[in-house]
Amino acid sequence: MADKKLLEVFKNEYPNRDYNIIHSAPEFTSVCPKTGQPDFGKITIEYVPDELCIELKSLKLYLNSYRNDGIFYESVTNKILDDLVEACKPRYMLITSEFNVRGGISSTVEAEYMKE
Amino acid sequence: MADKKLLEVFKNEYPNRDYNIIHSAPEFTSVCPKTGQPDFGKITIEYVPDELCIELKSLKLYLNSYRNDGIFYESVTNKILDDLVEACKPRYMLITSEFNVRGGISSTVEAEYMKE
Amino acid sequence: MADKKLLEVFKNEYPNRDYNIIHSAPEFTSVCPKTGQPDFGKITIEYVPDELCIELKSLKLYLNSYRNDGIFYESVTNKILDDLVEACKPRYMLITSEFNVRGGISSTVEAEYMKE
Amino acid sequence: MADKKLLEVFKNEYPNRDYNIIHSAPEFTSVCPKTGQPDFGKITIEYVPDELCIELKSLKLYLNSYRNDGIFYESVTNKILDDLVEACKPRYMLITSEFNVRGGISSTVEAEYMKE
Amino acid sequence: MADKKLLEVFKNEYPNRDYNIIHSAPEFTSVCPKTGQPDFGKITIEYVPDELCIELKSLKLYLNSYRNDGIFYESVTNKILDDLVEACKPRYMLITSEFNVRGGISSTVEAEYMKE
Amino acid sequence: MADKKLLEVFKNEYPNRDYNIIHSAPEFTSVCPKTGQPDFGKITIEYVPDELCIELKSLKLYLNSYRNDGIFYESVTNKILDDLVEACKPRYMLITSEFNVRGGISSTVEAEYMKE
Amino acid sequence: MADKKLLEVFKNEYPNRDYNIIHSAPEFTSVCPKTGQPDFGKITIEYVPDELCIELKSLKLYLNSYRNDGIFYESVTNKILDDLVEACKPRYMLITSEFNVRGGISSTVEAEYMKE
Amino acid sequence: MADKKLLEVFKNEYPNRDYNIIHSAPEFTSVCPKTGQPDFGKITIEYVPDELCIELKSLKLYLNSYRNDGIFYESVTNKILDDLVEACKPRYMLITSEFNVRGGISSTVEAEYMKE
Amino acid sequence: MADKKLLEVFKNEYPNRDYNIIHSAPEFTSVCPKTGQPDFGKITIEYVPDELCIELKSLKLYLNSYRNDGIFYESVTNKILDDLVEACKPRYMLITSEFNVRGGISSTVEAEYMKE
Amino acid sequence: MADKKLLEVFKNEYPNRDYNIIHSAPEFTSVCPKTGQPDFGKITIEYVPDELCIELKSLKLYLNSYRNDGIFYESVTNKILDDLVEACKPRYMLITSEFNVRGGISSTVEAEYMKE
Repeated sequence: MADKKLLEVFKNEYPNRDYNIIHSAPEFTSVCPKTGQPDFGKITIEYVPDELCIELKSLKLYLNSYRNDGIFYESVTNKILDDLVEACKPRYMLITSEFNVRGGISSTVEAEYMKE
Repeated sequence: MADKKLLEVFKNEYPNRDYNIIHSAPEFTSVCPKTGQPDFGKITIEYVPDELCIELKSLKLYLNSYRNDGIFYESVTNKILDDLVEACKPRYMLITSEFNVRGGISSTVEAEYMKE
Repeated sequence: MADKKLLEVFKNEYPNRDYNIIHSAPEFTSVCPKTGQPDFGKITIEYVPDELCIELKSLKLYLNSYRNDGIFYESVTNKILDDLVEACKPRYMLITSEFNVRGGISSTVEAEYMKE
Repeated sequence: MADKKLLEVFKNEYPNRDYNIIHSAPEFTSVCPKTGQPDFGKITIEYVPDELCIELKSLKLYLNSYRNDGIFYESVTNKILDDLVEACKPRYMLITSEFNVRGGISSTVEAEYMKE
Repeated sequence: MADKKLLEVFKNEYPNRDYNIIHSAPEFTSVCPKTGQPDFGKITIEYVPDELCIELKSLKLYLNSYRNDGIFYESVTNKILDDLVEACKPRYMLITSEFNVRGGISSTVEAEYMKE
Repeated sequence: MADKKLLEVFKNEYPNRDYNIIHSAPEFTSVCPKTGQPDFGKITIEYVPDELCIELKSLKLYLNSYRNDGIFYESVTNKILDDLVEACKPRYMLITSEFNVRGGISSTVEAEYMKE
Repeated sequence: MADKKLLEVFKNEYPNRDYNIIHSAPEFTSVCPKTGQPDFGKITIEYVPDELCIELKSLKLYLNSYRNDGIFYESVTNKILDDLVEACKPRYMLITSEFNVRGGISSTVEAEYMKE
Repeated sequence: MADKKLLEVFKNEYPNRDYNIIHSAPEFTSVCPKTGQPDFGKITIEYVPDELCIELKSLKLYLNSYRNDGIFYESVTNKILDDLVEACKPRYMLITSEFNVRGGISSTVEAEYMKE
Repeated sequence: MADKKLLEVFKNEYPNRDYNIIHSAPEFTSVCPKTGQPDFGKITIEYVPDELCIELKSLKLYLNSYRNDGIFYESVTNKILDDLVEACKPRYMLITSEFNVRGGISSTVEAEYMKE
Repeated sequence: MADKKLLEVFKNEYPNRDYNIIHSAPEFTSVCPKTGQPDFGKITIEYVPDELCIELKSLKLYLNSYRNDGIFYESVTNKILDDLVEACKPRYMLITSEFNVRGGISSTVEAEYMKE
């Protein structure tokens, strides 16, 4: 089950500079809560770190933990955003989820966070 | 016949955040009202939900209901926009219709709605 | 309903030479006999004419006549082969049907005829 | 010879909304006025209709009417813009002409009109 | 767990003709038996039916049943071939498995069966 | 009007070696004899020269001479083959004509000649 | 040797309208001043004409005149900009030079001019 | 070991004009500090020179000097930016590092510098 | 240094069937023995196993061991073939090495082995 | 001027094995003997070495030596074949020359040599 405690962070060595980090994970899979059939998609995480960066291997394990969860496209995108913002407290973050064709329709959800 | 009553919605779980949802339907077909021959195209729906999201399977059935309707490119795009805005009352919506080559010319129509 | 009587032929002006004619129709649509939902695909017809060639506009009308028929991938491919062979009696013909993704799987069926 | 009288229009059914219509015609051909050799290119017409839309078949015939005219790239682009603006009086129009390689160089011309 | 009893077949309506059926399933996933991490790939099934065809929805469920199995690339390919040959007794079958990059290396396994 | 007298040849400097020459002309246009509307396509000429090679500029002028001729796809391919074989008497020649989409269908015709 | 006197201009027929002209020349070659080996690249010229347009054949001859000149990437881009601005006195001009891989690195230089 | 003393510069011949120079190096490799396994990526350097330009061959040698260094994606990007800014004191610089898939995830880091 | 002792094998579970295994490693790098500069390429290994298969992680380590070796394209290809044939004694093996552009030329070497 | 004395060879270290070497040179340029204008193309050399291999840098210099020669497509292909066969006496060689569009037509010439 999706578990945000899997996420680990490390100290940003260049906190005085705003810069972008983009991780693209094309092997995301979860389960459709209505049909029980698997969904497949690509999750892209773009962020400007503040004091902390997301550790890459822990990100992989976190995304893999959705494998057998039943969850809608809109929810998974917003939940990943909430979990990652909580873990690394970035200056900015954008999550883009691109899901494969189902019933002849492909879907993308984009959600972003801006530190106030 | 195109029937907006086919559209179903569900409650947006993240109404406090502006985020984008994009559905791309490359298997749209209707009929040319002048020649009676089939038209083929891709309909892309991009929107920022307010309180309601469009249910994906009902969207497929709604788009399929144009299958034997005679309707012009310009009309089908604006009509889909009107029907979807009425169904889910979004903060923003953009419909892009890309139709296949006819007489050596391909056509795209783009119409958008912004909540006042 | 699919109607082979829509097919028209014309006299091959170069019957002494074996040559290939290939028509590719990426706008084929029929209906799934199990779900009632539309299927979409590309039909490619490659043949070596004998005395007769297939008239292109009649081919379009013939393929369009499957629009509201419920028929399986395997059957539609073999039926198009049978109908076209009967109509133009070619020296050779190959039908390739490439259907779009359904349930995460795309399908192709290839059937050929060789004059004995 | 290029003849703007070939252009026909129809009433825009959605005049209260600013929306884009894009027609892409990759089979444009005219003649080089210096060499007499044919030129080939793609003409793209993007516009925001006001009261009138361009009828698609008449657009095809209008573009085909350049087939044997000797005319420079810069002139053909501006002339198509003038003719179409006169015919449908749009709120905005952009003509993009992309011509094939001649002497190792390909050329594009872009001209736009904005209603005052 | 992978379960060949999920596979269903239907009667081939054209048994007198040798023809090809190709199903391509780009959403295959299983688990690496060494690391426990998920593997992702595309499975392509090409066959010449004899008396029986593979039912498409049952094929999807069969392939999905590998989702949480630990199995090597070479084994999964040969096992799918054995299971499908047993289910539909084809005249010919080729399984191609294309797995995503692991450790900078992507892998493909191809195994075929020919009726004697 | 298509005029094979436009074709010029030059002496093959390497007649003792069988080698291929391929000319690809993507700017071919003629007129549909049924509708009077222009057709567009790509003509590819592959041949093994014997004593003579086709001069490239004359080939361009020859292909351009079809510009306002009404001729079917099948005929234009076979006629170009006959004219070029007569002009340069090659050991082998293959003409491939790929025509753009008309009525949702694209067409290719392939005809070849082999010296006896 | 690169010679700006090769450049010819003609009168802009539409001086009352700001419009773009883009010429793309993918067959540019000069010589590396350090190694004496040839460099290859694509030069793209985008400009808004004022009273004068650049004649296309003269542009080709001008670009070809760099063929045996030893000149650095940065210099050739700025020099072409200076020469073309002097020749046609445009309202705006942008030169983009994209050079092929040397030592595993490809390089692009972009320089622009804006009439004051 | 990465050595910024390898970097050489030359005098910008056009210091009065702001223009872009972009170098793209797709053959970058370093070593993962955690696993000791090699990482591979593409480094793109875009800058507006002030008085000095980066000499291309020295840039290649500088990038090659990371070959056996253990360094994280985020650090290598910021360090290259710091070293290049120190060497050529540009008006603006952007470093983009695109690293290949590791554990199913590809990563990009973008860092920029603006002269105050 | 390249070390064939890094290669490990495992028992082929399907020795009664001839089947293909293809590993594609796009992150190969070695050093040019003449210039000392790094070379980059893609190594593809296609084989029909007999009693033994190549273990994938050991293959990665074996290919990585060329990282700082000075070796020519032709030699590296033949040496990889010899080492892998010795390690797994396949029925057939083909090594394809595709090296990146050097001096404007890219190179591929293909060597194969067939059990007698 | 094209000079085959620029070609150097080295000893094939694996003469007991038939294997392929392919060099692809996309930066070939010569001059059209009729118009004096530059031609551009890609030369691909595929061969099976016997006792000798072609040294890569000398190949580059040899191909560069055509830069200012006036020579036809058919001649340059056959001449490169003759020069390279003479230099390295291969078991097999194929030269493929792909020239850019001139007058709307691109051309390819293929010539091969087989040791008797």
